Amino acid sequence: MSLLKGNPSLNPAFFIRKAKDTYFAQHDVLPLTSPKAVRVEIKATGLCGSDLHYYQDGRNGPKVVSAPMVLGHESAGVVVEVGPAVTSVKVGDKVAVEPCVPSRFSDETMSGNYHLCPHMEFAASPPTHGTLARYFTVDDNFVVKLPDHVSLEEGATAEPLAVACHANKLAGTTFNRTVFVFGAGPVGLLVAATAKAFGATRVLVIDLFDDKLQLAKKMGATDVHNSRADRGKSESEVVEGLTSKYFAPDIVFDATGVKPCIRSGMLAVKPGGTYVQVGMGMNNTEIPLGPLGRKEATVKGSFRYSFGDYRDAVQLLSSGKVNSKLIITHRFKFKQAKEAYEFAGTGKAVKIIIEGPTDEDLLLANQSKL
Amino acid sequence: MSLLKGNPSLNPAFFIRKAKDTYFAQHDVLPLTSPKAVRVEIKATGLCGSDLHYYQDGRNGPKVVSAPMVLGHESAGVVVEVGPAVTSVKVGDKVAVEPCVPSRFSDETMSGNYHLCPHMEFAASPPTHGTLARYFTVDDNFVVKLPDHVSLEEGATAEPLAVACHANKLAGTTFNRTVFVFGAGPVGLLVAATAKAFGATRVLVIDLFDDKLQLAKKMGATDVHNSRADRGKSESEVVEGLTSKYFAPDIVFDATGVKPCIRSGMLAVKPGGTYVQVGMGMNNTEIPLGPLGRKEATVKGSFRYSFGDYRDAVQLLSSGKVNSKLIITHRFKFKQAKEAYEFAGTGKAVKIIIEGPTDEDLLLANQSKL
Amino acid sequence: MSLLKGNPSLNPAFFIRKAKDTYFAQHDVLPLTSPKAVRVEIKATGLCGSDLHYYQDGRNGPKVVSAPMVLGHESAGVVVEVGPAVTSVKVGDKVAVEPCVPSRFSDETMSGNYHLCPHMEFAASPPTHGTLARYFTVDDNFVVKLPDHVSLEEGATAEPLAVACHANKLAGTTFNRTVFVFGAGPVGLLVAATAKAFGATRVLVIDLFDDKLQLAKKMGATDVHNSRADRGKSESEVVEGLTSKYFAPDIVFDATGVKPCIRSGMLAVKPGGTYVQVGMGMNNTEIPLGPLGRKEATVKGSFRYSFGDYRDAVQLLSSGKVNSKLIITHRFKFKQAKEAYEFAGTGKAVKIIIEGPTDEDLLLANQSKL
Amino acid sequence: MSLLKGNPSLNPAFFIRKAKDTYFAQHDVLPLTSPKAVRVEIKATGLCGSDLHYYQDGRNGPKVVSAPMVLGHESAGVVVEVGPAVTSVKVGDKVAVEPCVPSRFSDETMSGNYHLCPHMEFAASPPTHGTLARYFTVDDNFVVKLPDHVSLEEGATAEPLAVACHANKLAGTTFNRTVFVFGAGPVGLLVAATAKAFGATRVLVIDLFDDKLQLAKKMGATDVHNSRADRGKSESEVVEGLTSKYFAPDIVFDATGVKPCIRSGMLAVKPGGTYVQVGMGMNNTEIPLGPLGRKEATVKGSFRYSFGDYRDAVQLLSSGKVNSKLIITHRFKFKQAKEAYEFAGTGKAVKIIIEGPTDEDLLLANQSKL
Repeated sequence: MSLLKGNPSLNPAFFIRKAKDTYFAQHDVLPLTSPKAVRVEIKATGLCGSDLHYYQDGRNGPKVVSAPMVLGHESAGVVVEVGPAVTSVKVGDKVAVEPCVPSRFSDETMSGNYHLCPHMEFAASPPTHGTLARYFTVDDNFVVKLPDHVSLEEGATAEPLAVACHANKLAGTTFNRTVFVFGAGPVGLLVAATAKAFGATRVLVIDLFDDKLQLAKKMGATDVHNSRADRGKSESEVVEGLTSKYFAPDIVFDATGVKPCIRSGMLAVKPGGTYVQVGMGMNNTEIPLGPLGRKEATVKGSFRYSFGDYRDAVQLLSSGKVNSKLIITHRFKFKQAKEAYEFAGTGKAVKIIIEGPTDEDLLLANQSKL
Repeated sequence: MSLLKGNPSLNPAFFIRKAKDTYFAQHDVLPLTSPKAVRVEIKATGLCGSDLHYYQDGRNGPKVVSAPMVLGHESAGVVVEVGPAVTSVKVGDKVAVEPCVPSRFSDETMSGNYHLCPHMEFAASPPTHGTLARYFTVDDNFVVKLPDHVSLEEGATAEPLAVACHANKLAGTTFNRTVFVFGAGPVGLLVAATAKAFGATRVLVIDLFDDKLQLAKKMGATDVHNSRADRGKSESEVVEGLTSKYFAPDIVFDATGVKPCIRSGMLAVKPGGTYVQVGMGMNNTEIPLGPLGRKEATVKGSFRYSFGDYRDAVQLLSSGKVNSKLIITHRFKFKQAKEAYEFAGTGKAVKIIIEGPTDEDLLLANQSKL
Repeated sequence: MSLLKGNPSLNPAFFIRKAKDTYFAQHDVLPLTSPKAVRVEIKATGLCGSDLHYYQDGRNGPKVVSAPMVLGHESAGVVVEVGPAVTSVKVGDKVAVEPCVPSRFSDETMSGNYHLCPHMEFAASPPTHGTLARYFTVDDNFVVKLPDHVSLEEGATAEPLAVACHANKLAGTTFNRTVFVFGAGPVGLLVAATAKAFGATRVLVIDLFDDKLQLAKKMGATDVHNSRADRGKSESEVVEGLTSKYFAPDIVFDATGVKPCIRSGMLAVKPGGTYVQVGMGMNNTEIPLGPLGRKEATVKGSFRYSFGDYRDAVQLLSSGKVNSKLIITHRFKFKQAKEAYEFAGTGKAVKIIIEGPTDEDLLLANQSKL
Repeated sequence: MSLLKGNPSLNPAFFIRKAKDTYFAQHDVLPLTSPKAVRVEIKATGLCGSDLHYYQDGRNGPKVVSAPMVLGHESAGVVVEVGPAVTSVKVGDKVAVEPCVPSRFSDETMSGNYHLCPHMEFAASPPTHGTLARYFTVDDNFVVKLPDHVSLEEGATAEPLAVACHANKLAGTTFNRTVFVFGAGPVGLLVAATAKAFGATRVLVIDLFDDKLQLAKKMGATDVHNSRADRGKSESEVVEGLTSKYFAPDIVFDATGVKPCIRSGMLAVKPGGTYVQVGMGMNNTEIPLGPLGRKEATVKGSFRYSFGDYRDAVQLLSSGKVNSKLIITHRFKFKQAKEAYEFAGTGKAVKIIIEGPTDEDLLLANQSKL
């Protein structure tokens, strides 16, 4: 019998103490208290930009690591224990894990916007522990069963794909819309693929790197544009160039947070159109508020995901409408978690998956800190 | 018989040639061509910030006066002639005039957003002539009948009040909302009054001048704040001060276009809330895009008005829910139009009304340029 | 010291065993388990049509009384105990009680429609006990504090007023809408009053009784119509009569459940307009589906109330925009609860309030069944 | 040179005088008056249920043929003449024709609902002439260019496909919705195919005929159900059978107008879901209003199509997401138009296309009535 199987109370986890200071340690395995609780044995975890911020800087925007915290929040695994009232999944099911616990009393939760709940406990957002451990526990309405033909590492991508679904729903992406997506990182690629899957007729992805743009085409972009070609052009020339060469978009997503992209996107969007900032953008950005007003455009922030988004993400994977395997460029063992974060910092990967933990990881973890 | 009554072909008008260069002249009186056309004899015209831009600078944002143009677009008058298919009004009716002709073929018009029509001909937006003349002609779906108890100068305020209605509809102002309004100029005051009339429970108006804030209270504001009190405070102290002393708003309107107001409003709005820029703002403004995204707020530009807004404005006046007489601080004769624009430039007035033209104006106009 | 004050464990309640078979008995007083729980001492309870169904028939639609159940669900009272995490109210506060416990796991709750939760426990909907007892306990997000100037019996009317708010929000009642309301019972009257408060310009109430129509006018109706005048007319004559004499409504509410009203309302509503069935209507009703389709009208059922409706109801009371005191026509002591239900069956009352329980009630209850 | 080519003033047309009484005659060829007018030479016209009503009964609901009228309204053709302001198409372009002229002054048109305009002139809706002629003329915003790879007879199906798009937009069909469609006639099939194209995960089509259900699967239905299997079952057994065997739908479309389907659909739809009546249904239908209310479902009529629907239909054809060729089961020559209508009456066809007119048709038309 394997070490892990034989020791259900072992729960190795990957902690961060402060910037760049990480370690492996045994994490608490508490009994299930909620009748709807599901304990998931984590098998695959994606690395995200926000994780990287914590790793590199010990903080992400206003959130600061001030006590040891388990990292990771893009995870899938296998159900190993369920509370007595759980009916939607059973032990042995593969699931994608929506890594959050909103307050059930807040106005935001009760009005259908639990992602905005001010009391949200979100994995790997300090002080809440993340998913880079053997076990993670949530209520059953925060796991979505994966069908047999969807792998666990694809299941881990349900998290950024839920971000993409949420952004597209805020944007109102439906059949026959035209869309610009700035940025061909993992989120930009998934936003573009989701826009196509939601029925957009034309999806233009803009980035600085041809290899990412090629990936965008494989993911569903109908057009791609390398903005290096725009060097030396004025802002209005760039915008005029994009809208006349390609099309004037109903919807613009920015997944870069970079001022020239934000401004170009806002200037390009059609009168009455919608610009969605995916992720957080820069804290302060100079935007063309006058032109936005004259064309009565709408600017929306898109934050994480809410009710239905995880299910939609899993359905996109399950139906093959989004092939997230294409964005998984690198894989690391659980015991290599620190190396994975270091590599993420090089910018060479699109999406990194950390596998496990496995018996081997456990031994290593034991050696180091458990 | 009066000079004007006896000479229906006389059509004195107030033209601008370039910045500060204005004159009176006879304007064409063309026969009605549309079966739904309504010729209105203008009796009262409000002065607006955009008019003032043309008067002072010969331009307003991207729009430039390059040929003589009649000024004015906030007008009410009396119907003097109607086409054969007109049924909604009759000769002698007092009407508020929605001063625009959208293309009937554009996507924007056909989809219910005629105010965004790229072929819009809007009064006193170059090269389209304005309403500061004896006559103005539009189709009958662009006039709204005024009841007996609403005066013509109140009718002229239907224009900025339609702006306020449009902004409040974009914002989703309904019963029990809480609202901040930055700026107690004519538009800010009417936005606040309309928010209250639309059911808002609390409306806080913020300005630098106590007399305007007193006017805001008379118009329907439940709270007022003089931002001079915030001098020396940091941005976050200002925002914290406003939201803790008053309340955290569902909706914020900025009617100032000034960066500190724009930023405070964006930072103050509730998670999931809506910020509406009324009027055009500065062309480029540094906004807190990160915080907006994290709380998933929506930023909308509000541009003029569209279907139903003029009717709603007239109903607000007619029902007494908005008392626009309170904002009319100064009146000028038609022959004093240039003086009116000069006075508007001093910033001493809230809303200036130009009356007429009358016989007396006509004589003067004849002396000068007719 | 009063009997009740001296005995906090006394909890007299008014039970129904089967149709017309009621009794008083001591009800359990359980300790608070939720950290957000609020125990309310009930002071006023309104009688509702659904209560009456249980009293008269032992059932209401598909819901059947099969075990003893405390009646009542329109209640207000005073907070007597709070859990450790309660911050929104404190002991001694007057509150309106939203009498329901939805599941926190259901799709409906998580998507912002907790009123549609299939696991809802709703007061006096079998098998859930109601509010006609000394104590009722809910989490603090299901009570709304009443200001000093709103009485407890007004607070009890927050329940049907929340129904009216919910229906008006589903209908999209906003400024300047025109509205028909069929039925001037408590719900119809509150729907009409709320429509006016939400900004409707014209509200026509239709009923068979002039005294109720007079009450409608006091509550905010702009027009009333006694449909006895329509006897002998064809359906199309009735509808033509209503729309030509009064106006063609954007929105129609039916609060009667009676076929001629339902049909007239559906035929009267404007193209593109909305018809809302408040309450449950008849199970099977022959409706003009063809004409509804040709004018692309929307028919919506409105069921109870959801997030925000109770707060809006209390704000309507607090602001004086709805004067629910006008509909309270009869009051009974707690010990007279059975008489109250009997009287409700005569149809002579608009809204009956059951006061208490008080010491006196308690003694009686003791004598009978406690 | 062909007869038609050599004689641009020849305009044979297929008229109805009264039920079953049709004839061919020369129809007026008026000069283009609107600067945006487009004259289309019609090449393919689909037969529709409403046409058939006129042919068989001389009426369709409230609309009665009281003077000779050209039949037909589902047409595509080739542009042969354009007004001076036309830019979107040019002579020689293949186009689908949206066969209507709304008033440009009505509230409905100005608010973006031109299809509800009370002054609408709609092809082959008395007294407006239809498209079964050589020429049909509309403004250029009522034609949509067909790409080379879309045939003219596919272009003719843009009309019922626009109906399907409109219904799906009213229903809010988006990614991952579940849908029931009652009826596998042309409209039901196109509604189902469009629902799939709009992103629905599961689309169940219900009909009495296996061949139509097989066609439904080819068009995109994920499930089909032959309701003959339900004979002898109670209504609740049928509904329980459908929702437990297949799924509980977010959205139900009825394209039958038949009471058992209407009722089953309304009873099957999820709490908070939407039922859309496509086409007109029976005038009076007994519906389960109580259950609809208790689950707060919405019932919408869907009438024709409005802004954007024709473009979406052409994009569905152009992208191959809907293959309307599958529903074209029979073709007739223009000269056989009467035979086509007779055959349509047998119910053996799904969609009949009338080709032409051609030279040969013209000769025949000349012989008969021109």
